[in-house]
Amino acid sequence: MSQAQRARIDAMLRQPRPTEPRTVAEIRDGFRALMSGMAVPAGIRTRTIPLGTRPAVLVEPPGPARAATILYFHGGGFVYGSPETAMSLTGNLVSRTGFRALSVDYRLAPEHPFPAAVEDTLDAYRALLDSGEPPSAVAFAGDSAGGGLAVTTCLAARDAGLPLPAAIVAFSPGLDMTRTGASMVSKAGIDPLFTRASLDHTGAMYLAGQDPSQPLLSPAVLADLTGFPPMLLQVGTNELLLDDSTRLAARARAAEVDVVLDVTAGVPHVFQCFTGILDEADEALDRAAQFLGQRLRERDTR
Amino acid sequence: MSQAQRARIDAMLRQPRPTEPRTVAEIRDGFRALMSGMAVPAGIRTRTIPLGTRPAVLVEPPGPARAATILYFHGGGFVYGSPETAMSLTGNLVSRTGFRALSVDYRLAPEHPFPAAVEDTLDAYRALLDSGEPPSAVAFAGDSAGGGLAVTTCLAARDAGLPLPAAIVAFSPGLDMTRTGASMVSKAGIDPLFTRASLDHTGAMYLAGQDPSQPLLSPAVLADLTGFPPMLLQVGTNELLLDDSTRLAARARAAEVDVVLDVTAGVPHVFQCFTGILDEADEALDRAAQFLGQRLRERDTR
Repeated sequence: MSQAQRARIDAMLRQPRPTEPRTVAEIRDGFRALMSGMAVPAGIRTRTIPLGTRPAVLVEPPGPARAATILYFHGGGFVYGSPETAMSLTGNLVSRTGFRALSVDYRLAPEHPFPAAVEDTLDAYRALLDSGEPPSAVAFAGDSAGGGLAVTTCLAARDAGLPLPAAIVAFSPGLDMTRTGASMVSKAGIDPLFTRASLDHTGAMYLAGQDPSQPLLSPAVLADLTGFPPMLLQVGTNELLLDDSTRLAARARAAEVDVVLDVTAGVPHVFQCFTGILDEADEALDRAAQFLGQRLRERDTR
Repeated sequence: MSQAQRARIDAMLRQPRPTEPRTVAEIRDGFRALMSGMAVPAGIRTRTIPLGTRPAVLVEPPGPARAATILYFHGGGFVYGSPETAMSLTGNLVSRTGFRALSVDYRLAPEHPFPAAVEDTLDAYRALLDSGEPPSAVAFAGDSAGGGLAVTTCLAARDAGLPLPAAIVAFSPGLDMTRTGASMVSKAGIDPLFTRASLDHTGAMYLAGQDPSQPLLSPAVLADLTGFPPMLLQVGTNELLLDDSTRLAARARAAEVDVVLDVTAGVPHVFQCFTGILDEADEALDRAAQFLGQRLRERDTR
C-alpha cells in the first residue's frame, strides 16, 4: 500500500487558501497551472475537431486505435477547465484501452450557465451518432463536474429519445447541486481541495439563480436511472463529494443498473490525476480501462 | 449485454421447491449435484494437503504459479458444500490470476456449529503464515457463507494479533445472521435460490441457539473494519443477501478501507459460477482477477 504516497498528495494539495473569493480568471488560471503538472502519457496524438456545436479534442493512442469512442467531459465545476486540463485523465484512458477519445470543449459558466454545458455534451453525442458511431461503441466518461455530465448527458439522451451509450465511467463525479450529501459535513476539513464555500462560489455561477432540485443538476438525489448502461464510479474518502457517488450507486442498484462503486480510502478528489506518484491512481485507471474494455463493442470496420 | 442469458439462468434456478424442509443429507447431495454441472477450467491441478487442523485442496494453475496464495472458503450456508463444490470459482480465480489457491475444508454444521468454521479457517491462515507465506502474498476469497468467512476470518486474525492478508474478495457474501437487510424483504420472490425460510433452516443449524448479534456472525451489522485490507464485494440484485454487501461496503468506507462494491443487475446468488453461459460471470471473474493481481505482492522466491 502507499500510505506515504497518500499523505504526500494530501500535503501537496492542502495549500493556504485566499481569504477573498477568487475571480473567475484567477480560478481558471490557477486550475490550468495545477493541472499542467499532471503526467500525460507519451505518444498520444491530439487534434481539435468540430463535434456538434462545439470543438472537441480528438485523442488517439500511439498505435492503431480500437474501433470505439470514449466521449470525455472534463472537470472544473462548470466554470473552469478544458479538454487540455483533463488530458492526463483522458490520455490515460486512451493509452490504457486503445480506444480513441473525444473530449468536448463545452461552454462554461458564468458566461453560459445551466443548461449550456449539458446542451453541448448532448449535441456532441448526437453528432457522434450521426457520424455513424453505434451507441454500443460509445462510453461517456468524465471527472468531477464532467463526471456529473457523463450521467446527466445520458439522462438528456434518454429524454431526447436517443439510444444510450454502452457504459459510463465517472471519476469523483459531482452529482448533487443541492449539496445534501452527508459527506458535505462529515468530510469538511478532511477534503484538501474543496470547502462548502468554494463549491457554492462556482456552483452559483452555473445555477444563475435556477433551482438545483432538478435531475440534470442533482441526479444523485432526483434521477430515475432506469435503462442506464453499466456504470463505474470511482471516488476517494477524502471528498466532500463522496456521497454524491454512494447515493447515485444506490439509485442505480434500485433501478436494476449494473454499477461498480469503487472507493479508495485516504485520497482526494480525482486522485486518478496523480499517475506515477500515487499507486492508487494507476491502479484505479487500470480498473477503469478494464471496465471500458468489457463494455464497449468495437464497431464493424470491414 | 446478455438479458437473454440472465433470464435463462433465472429460469434454470427457479425450480419447484419441496414443501417439507429437506434433511441435511438431501441438502448436501442436492448442492453437490447442482455444482457438479459448473465448468472447471481445463488444466488446473488439485491435490489435498493438511493445512492447520483441517485438510485443504491445493489448486495450481496449468503453468508455473505466481508466488502468492488465495486462501479460499467455499459456500454452502455453513452446512453443505466443500472445496470440490466451489472448484469452478476457485479454479477460475487460479487460472485467471496465475496464483495458487488453498481451499479449506472447514467443519460444517449441524455437526459443528459456530464458531467451528471460523476456528478452522483461522487455523488454516495461521498455518499458511507459519509455512513462510508473507501476509502481503495472501488474499482471502470465498463465496456465499465462504465470502462471509473471508471477512470474519480477517476479523478473527486481527483479534488474534496476526498480520492481515493483502486483500479480500467475496462473491455474494453472507454477512448478517440477524437477517435485517432490506433486501431480505424487497428481494423475496425475486431471489430464485433462497427464501427466508430456507436461510433460517440452515442458519439455525450453524447458530445452534447462539446469539446472531456478534461480529463474527453478522459483520455487516456489527463489525469494526478498521485496518482491513482492500475488499472487493461482488453481488447480484436478485439476491436476498444483496444488502449484506451494501452494508458491509458502507462500514468499510466509514472505516477508511478501500472497497469496491460491484453489483450486477438481474443475476442470482454467486452468478460467477455460470462461466461460459453468462457473460457477466466471466466478466466479474476477470475483474476479481485484476483486483487480486493489483493487491497481492509475490513473495521473494530467489
